[in-house]
Amino acid sequence: MKNILLFGSGRSTSSLIKYLLDRTEKNHFKLHIADQSIESIQQKIEHNPNAFATALDIHNDHHRKELIKNADVVISMLPAFLHPIIAADCLELNKHLVTASYISKELKAIDAEVKAKGLIFMNECGLDPGIDHMSAMKVLDEIRSKGGNPVHFESFCGGLVAPESDNNVWNYKFSWNPRNVVVAGQGGAAKFLQQGTYKYIPYQRVFKRTEFLEVDGFGRFEAYANRDSLSYREVYGLQKAHTIYRGTMRRVGYSRAWNMLVQLGVTDDTYTIEDSENMTYREFINSFLYYHPTDSVEVKFRLTLNIEQDDTVWDKFLELDFFSDTKKIGLKNATPAQIMEKILSEKWALQPEDKDMIVMYHKFGYIMPNVDETLQIDATMVCLGEDSLHTGMAKTVGLPVGIIALKILNGEIKTPGVQMPITKEVYEPVLKELETFGIVFNEREVPYTGGM
Amino acid sequence: MKNILLFGSGRSTSSLIKYLLDRTEKNHFKLHIADQSIESIQQKIEHNPNAFATALDIHNDHHRKELIKNADVVISMLPAFLHPIIAADCLELNKHLVTASYISKELKAIDAEVKAKGLIFMNECGLDPGIDHMSAMKVLDEIRSKGGNPVHFESFCGGLVAPESDNNVWNYKFSWNPRNVVVAGQGGAAKFLQQGTYKYIPYQRVFKRTEFLEVDGFGRFEAYANRDSLSYREVYGLQKAHTIYRGTMRRVGYSRAWNMLVQLGVTDDTYTIEDSENMTYREFINSFLYYHPTDSVEVKFRLTLNIEQDDTVWDKFLELDFFSDTKKIGLKNATPAQIMEKILSEKWALQPEDKDMIVMYHKFGYIMPNVDETLQIDATMVCLGEDSLHTGMAKTVGLPVGIIALKILNGEIKTPGVQMPITKEVYEPVLKELETFGIVFNEREVPYTGGM
Repeated sequence: MKNILLFGSGRSTSSLIKYLLDRTEKNHFKLHIADQSIESIQQKIEHNPNAFATALDIHNDHHRKELIKNADVVISMLPAFLHPIIAADCLELNKHLVTASYISKELKAIDAEVKAKGLIFMNECGLDPGIDHMSAMKVLDEIRSKGGNPVHFESFCGGLVAPESDNNVWNYKFSWNPRNVVVAGQGGAAKFLQQGTYKYIPYQRVFKRTEFLEVDGFGRFEAYANRDSLSYREVYGLQKAHTIYRGTMRRVGYSRAWNMLVQLGVTDDTYTIEDSENMTYREFINSFLYYHPTDSVEVKFRLTLNIEQDDTVWDKFLELDFFSDTKKIGLKNATPAQIMEKILSEKWALQPEDKDMIVMYHKFGYIMPNVDETLQIDATMVCLGEDSLHTGMAKTVGLPVGIIALKILNGEIKTPGVQMPITKEVYEPVLKELETFGIVFNEREVPYTGGM
Repeated sequence: MKNILLFGSGRSTSSLIKYLLDRTEKNHFKLHIADQSIESIQQKIEHNPNAFATALDIHNDHHRKELIKNADVVISMLPAFLHPIIAADCLELNKHLVTASYISKELKAIDAEVKAKGLIFMNECGLDPGIDHMSAMKVLDEIRSKGGNPVHFESFCGGLVAPESDNNVWNYKFSWNPRNVVVAGQGGAAKFLQQGTYKYIPYQRVFKRTEFLEVDGFGRFEAYANRDSLSYREVYGLQKAHTIYRGTMRRVGYSRAWNMLVQLGVTDDTYTIEDSENMTYREFINSFLYYHPTDSVEVKFRLTLNIEQDDTVWDKFLELDFFSDTKKIGLKNATPAQIMEKILSEKWALQPEDKDMIVMYHKFGYIMPNVDETLQIDATMVCLGEDSLHTGMAKTVGLPVGIIALKILNGEIKTPGVQMPITKEVYEPVLKELETFGIVFNEREVPYTGGM
């Protein structure tokens, strides 16, 4: 029997653990799961005789190394900042490593050593980063193999709520870390390349500059720019592309309303609000509006943000109870962003009966020899959650990690080094197996839209 | 003969040095000036037999201490981060110290030692901070001495261009560090207290929320909120005030146009622009606008910022040559803010024949026993530059520093400790002497405007 060791048993590991448990017998391995407490592990492994739970303080070097020593492949679903510790152990003890996190500087630095030892350290194996790489490289390689030259690449992803559970006027619920949603777009301008020109969008305009996207059977979405559009230019071999743009998908109308929150200043995470604990929601909102001796908070809010009487965006703020003079913030020394996270979580939490939805959309523009016009392929994928445990998020993040770990264990993925899943050796079998779980990309030729 | 030692001979020291030189004979002291090079010193001291120039590397401990050892009062007009070094020497060598900078943590920490040795370390002695403290405390003390209770304090200051030299459509020229003007308002929300409520304004709205101010003989100004309005609440004894607001003054229309630059994103100092060196101004502006195959940069600029055909704000951008396709940025790896500083400096530099203008405006609302309504005193000051050397900025920053240093030398200011000029012992004689230089506050009772 071989051994797979998994660090972490948080929310996004449910589908990963189920995938591995279902395959212990057939693939002759035992699954060891280590986390701070074993409660959340035991819930997930039930009575599988090949699965073992261990309570671990990750900073206990001796215990951590003992666990790694007995493994053949190590998977880490812990926060990314802990990966350098685990990677160093895996290098020392000659173990393969799989993560869903971005390749850090520390990992890049040990690439030569990892290769020399014939080890595979596969990172960015989840949804985004992960499935985005694999599905994009598949189409890019196909275009190149038929002699085409990719000149235009746009890629969008969104973690949303499934249509059947979509019952708020923002058409949005939290399927991952709410904090990241509140501070989205902060920390620097969005930078991308469009028709040969570098473009920069500051935070105060990111949610104003959206693009519409239609997905068959799921209607219309909008997308705002990510900060990091250019980071994969080299990796994807797109040095000669004139357009590279990555964005985040939301339902139409979300971004215009969110931009109003940005303009108001309530998403700021850099300072704390005086006496936040005892404030009502109404007082919190009023602290971002001008003083007036008689105008109501509602009137000031409308005037400040130019909201017309018949604008339905107003319903979005009413739904969040922004003007309640009874609801209390109840958080000590909180930043505006922390307060917003609380207000939003009350309305946007995924309920036990709710299903989430992952949407991905790529556009590839390319040139063929002796063809006058630019051609385009669009690839879209929608993955619905099964329930609030096996969410679309847990499936799309966890399944590729599990598939890759098993293929490394079985010797089907062989090329050593610190890497991400962008080679055909990896993406082809992984995408094929993902299809058996309903994670399918629909590719089609469309007229080129990039020059508009 | 006594000795005054001045560190620094930069742009803002011209009036300070002239003030001291004019008084060496009568007050029996020698003036020693130390700076990196003695060229700029020699220009300023001319042939005064009581003035001496020394070239000094401020990090040469031995040389620096030798100079301080021979002084009775030390003035530092060096950058604020160097003051802890000089303050430590002054404490060790028993010398008084005068600066125009904010009291740092390091200085606060040595207050007890400074007092124990009977030394005076007087900081915040320039314009803002400096004259603002003195002129505000004078009125606040007067209100309190007649039994009044100050409840409302607003204070505004602006370094502008004199009407006779005001010949651009922004009605603004640089009379101090241009960089600080470009990044004004960044780094955190503006926070203040208005009618008992804490108010917060994010960067993206600071330049939208302006207040108008009229100054007799000089017309109308506008002001936007400073970040630090509450820092003087304790110092001024305004713990019970319901309104505390500090702002920066500009001519009307400046802030609306500046806000468009903020919205565009061209004031960002956190990232660099690709190939900034070889860009034209037009290309730089275009990199913040959406892509369109046929619309001109001008059309996209107007549409993005909602500028109507007949809006005169347009002239402000034309005047800056924003749409020039021949002017080059010429700066390597520059941030948007650095590029804007260059573009603005071409048009806003104070020319040799130009005069600048300092404007200060305080509003004091207070309650008297047995009087129903809130009363108000407004205090305004305007100081015009004489020429491009003895600017209003150099006068208002340098003269109070010189006056205070001389009064410490002569034993007229006696109370020891690390302090700022907020006691009657200091502000009364200093404000009186400033009047002889035309730096005069015009105080008048007005109807209370704060409740509007």
